[in-house]
Amino acid sequence: MNTNTQNSAKFIVIEGLEGAGKSSAIALVRDFIEKHTGKAPVCTREPGGTPLAEQMRDLVKVANEDDPLCDEAECLLFYAARAQLVANVIKPSLAKGDWVLGDRHNLSSLAYQGGGRGLMPLVSAISDATLKGFKPDLTLYLDIEPKLGLERAARRGELDRIENQEIEFFNRTRATFLEFADADDSIKIVDASQSMAEVHKDIIALLQELSW
Amino acid sequence: MNTNTQNSAKFIVIEGLEGAGKSSAIALVRDFIEKHTGKAPVCTREPGGTPLAEQMRDLVKVANEDDPLCDEAECLLFYAARAQLVANVIKPSLAKGDWVLGDRHNLSSLAYQGGGRGLMPLVSAISDATLKGFKPDLTLYLDIEPKLGLERAARRGELDRIENQEIEFFNRTRATFLEFADADDSIKIVDASQSMAEVHKDIIALLQELSW
Repeated sequence: MNTNTQNSAKFIVIEGLEGAGKSSAIALVRDFIEKHTGKAPVCTREPGGTPLAEQMRDLVKVANEDDPLCDEAECLLFYAARAQLVANVIKPSLAKGDWVLGDRHNLSSLAYQGGGRGLMPLVSAISDATLKGFKPDLTLYLDIEPKLGLERAARRGELDRIENQEIEFFNRTRATFLEFADADDSIKIVDASQSMAEVHKDIIALLQELSW
Repeated sequence: MNTNTQNSAKFIVIEGLEGAGKSSAIALVRDFIEKHTGKAPVCTREPGGTPLAEQMRDLVKVANEDDPLCDEAECLLFYAARAQLVANVIKPSLAKGDWVLGDRHNLSSLAYQGGGRGLMPLVSAISDATLKGFKPDLTLYLDIEPKLGLERAARRGELDRIENQEIEFFNRTRATFLEFADADDSIKIVDASQSMAEVHKDIIALLQELSW
């Protein structure tokens, strides 16, 4: 739960594998928040979202054959970018009463690096030490079978370094998303294999459960 | 202790506050290693030492008024750079039988961020999770009174963001260096307030204690 108690502004995050439909879900949630609060939310993407965090994102996204990014460094860069975003954007926005809508947040690191790459002890230790309990008020996890999601993502264009992994990596990642959703009532699973209309209907129903 | 058991190559690190005389100590140790092994050591500096780690160093060193680097992000960037250097330079060099000489390593994070900035729980957790017990065979800590060290550093030219801190920060940092040296037999204290000739004599004596 975010530590903001001054007002009703909330931090909502959209999570999901490649091709799960995050972009259209984000547009939907953004419009819903604007309609219900009279003001568009502050939109963030991770890794990134501040000038320095975007530079850290570039270091993660661009493969360097002469100096391959090791797993530990990748994980630490994600958290450096996240710490910067939380400190300089998310917390100040919530404190001002602005809602925040995140394209990915901590659950992605736990699922991709922790579950997918098998680095859970490292990710979990860094997550706890860095975030100290700060978390979204609501996370919408768009669940999709990796094979189907990757086919959709491939149709969008070239896959980047992270998307160009073997299917087993995404199966482990998905399993970890589902485990966390199962254990945390603030993470809601949306069946993203449905039609877009059905997915959006489910998202709206979940948003209406929030106190506005 | 580094996990290299194939050969006698060692990882030696020079630590110390600004103005303690690290540069001339590094030149001395480099020459000593070359003389005793017939080959110059691989020299590293932290943060940095690989192409990606140098880019991370730039993010730490350059102040950005619009997006000030938060303490957590600074600490995570240091460890991302360190993980990269250990994985791609230090461990492979030792495995090949090359000695490694480091201009700073993990003890700097523990002393500056942990002690100086008061972030020891964060630094300690990240250090343990990232390095998993990997450490130098020998660390030479050049101990100097912060006021004297900073006067020397100021004479060299402009101080960077980290050097431009209040004296109390450096007093806390020094105290932490000394605490760690007291608790770890592989960290040797060298009195850097002495003349350069005396400092170098002490360093040579400590190097001669190693098995060559």
